[in-house]
Amino acid sequence: MPSTNQVTLNAPLDMHLHLRDGEMLENIASSSARTFSGAIIMPNLVPPVSSKEEVIAYKARIKEAIGAEDFTPYMTLFFKPTYDKAFLSSVRDEITAIKLYPAGITTNSEGGVSGFNVEELRPALEAMAELDIPLCVHGETNGFVMDREAEFVSIYEKLAGAFPKLKIIMEHITTKASVAALDRFENLYATITIHHLLITLDDVAGGMLKPHLFCKPIAKRPEDRDALLKVALAAHPKVMFGSDSAPHPKHAKEACGCAAGVFTAPVALQLLTELFEEHNAPLDKLQAFVSGNAQKIYSITPLSKQVVLEKKPFKIPSDYNGVVPMYADEKIAYSIKEVING
Amino acid sequence: MPSTNQVTLNAPLDMHLHLRDGEMLENIASSSARTFSGAIIMPNLVPPVSSKEEVIAYKARIKEAIGAEDFTPYMTLFFKPTYDKAFLSSVRDEITAIKLYPAGITTNSEGGVSGFNVEELRPALEAMAELDIPLCVHGETNGFVMDREAEFVSIYEKLAGAFPKLKIIMEHITTKASVAALDRFENLYATITIHHLLITLDDVAGGMLKPHLFCKPIAKRPEDRDALLKVALAAHPKVMFGSDSAPHPKHAKEACGCAAGVFTAPVALQLLTELFEEHNAPLDKLQAFVSGNAQKIYSITPLSKQVVLEKKPFKIPSDYNGVVPMYADEKIAYSIKEVING
Repeated sequence: MPSTNQVTLNAPLDMHLHLRDGEMLENIASSSARTFSGAIIMPNLVPPVSSKEEVIAYKARIKEAIGAEDFTPYMTLFFKPTYDKAFLSSVRDEITAIKLYPAGITTNSEGGVSGFNVEELRPALEAMAELDIPLCVHGETNGFVMDREAEFVSIYEKLAGAFPKLKIIMEHITTKASVAALDRFENLYATITIHHLLITLDDVAGGMLKPHLFCKPIAKRPEDRDALLKVALAAHPKVMFGSDSAPHPKHAKEACGCAAGVFTAPVALQLLTELFEEHNAPLDKLQAFVSGNAQKIYSITPLSKQVVLEKKPFKIPSDYNGVVPMYADEKIAYSIKEVING
Repeated sequence: MPSTNQVTLNAPLDMHLHLRDGEMLENIASSSARTFSGAIIMPNLVPPVSSKEEVIAYKARIKEAIGAEDFTPYMTLFFKPTYDKAFLSSVRDEITAIKLYPAGITTNSEGGVSGFNVEELRPALEAMAELDIPLCVHGETNGFVMDREAEFVSIYEKLAGAFPKLKIIMEHITTKASVAALDRFENLYATITIHHLLITLDDVAGGMLKPHLFCKPIAKRPEDRDALLKVALAAHPKVMFGSDSAPHPKHAKEACGCAAGVFTAPVALQLLTELFEEHNAPLDKLQAFVSGNAQKIYSITPLSKQVVLEKKPFKIPSDYNGVVPMYADEKIAYSIKEVING
């Protein structure tokens, strides 16, 4: 993208978002609703969102927290191998996807899947394929922290091969191994965060230790980031922006054993615009990465929203309602000028 | 080492120790002096210890902080390429080694060496070889955090080859690459910390983020730790225990951008004894690793001190005078029963 004074993004979508619940939901929902047309809402509450009633009630709480009609929460269920076709049919209209967590791998994932036995998973996954419900996956093993995602690629491939009609989204990919897998199976897709396009482990632990850049999957090596950048900047048709914006209270991020998650929702579009400009990537690729690709992959038509960004230094606030964002107190090149809804 | 109720270590030596200065020195000096006969004292104060007067004065401050005569601070200078033979001869009796820091690589190392031009370093390093002054090196490049030490191995080899009579100590090694280099050059030696024998990056950032386990060099991969364990437990004659115990005030460790360093001095011998027992390594190997090898490599005769450890659960305190130790509040298997000086 050549340097420009103004950029307009149409109907940005965040295909991986944690909105939490209760007070945190109240505090952060507007950060996403302001600049995104909609977002895939992750279901890892305590307890996880796993029934029709819970999806409906959570969606209502989100809408109440936002207090406006110009943002679509695309709801998800927390995957359980016991889901059957009758249940999935009954809940189909309320959800956009189902999210699978390996057990114990990240925040509130204790009830996830242990072992990936294809036959055990077959009834649920075949029903999802028939009902065209995409499966979103947090793809990490419980191995060494730098290897967890690369080790999971064989599980992605096993699932993709066994369920060729199931759309499988490799969520928040961080490695060249996952990028390479994209083109090996027609039914594998991926989301990529803004922070994994910007940082490596060096930024987290190469100088001082930076808890606000600590996330799961952890940021990887420079060659991994390069591989992610290559497909994001080219808007590879199988990749979508998903922030994985994951707020924790300031005290939990700066505590002695700090929780994983980077809060990027309020600054994601500004950072993405700056990144695409720095790499001289065309605006239409940014538009495809933040909306067009997701519309095609998920077959969704987002609410109309035009986000106008201007090239004007923006000092990122220290916090948004008590949640510290990525690059707090730092200056970035783009700011939101206006948002035109409808 | 078979399970045993009591272990006596003779004249333990810590061949890599940060005692700091001022209030911190007062707070932590006794943690080392209690259980070690002596320690190599690192010179990275602000400003770094780089003159005869500074060495003498720093040694006096250390002795005053300890207030007893049963601990030897083996003093070091902060390496400068401008040191010449006349200066080194004049300071020889006051120092045991000289420590080289690549510029800007760790705490207070800004005045270190940039580039490793053999001819520029030749006058100082040849004089050190003639005077039998070992060169202790913090071996990291400014590359990607997980690669910095392995990348530095070629510099170790360049120096070891160019100055075959210079004893070069690869300090606080953390990788299988450094372990492998040990046997390729007769004049390469190494120190190993207790924390790098116990943890990998998984312990620092695999679950919650743990600032009290964050250090430089950062803990590496499981296969790296395995390589370190192999030579430590066998008391490879070219490796010595060096804690790299590096205290920072609690607030600096738990701050948003946390400083690197693990404080192990008061718990190192207990943890080492537990580790050697767990791996069934013979007691004489532990004795060699914590004292015998260092005596031979450095040609030093430490003060007599017998440290009696007993197998009795020890809950590590939350802090020692405001400095949080490794494994604070956790229980370990061995405790110090008594220390017999003289």
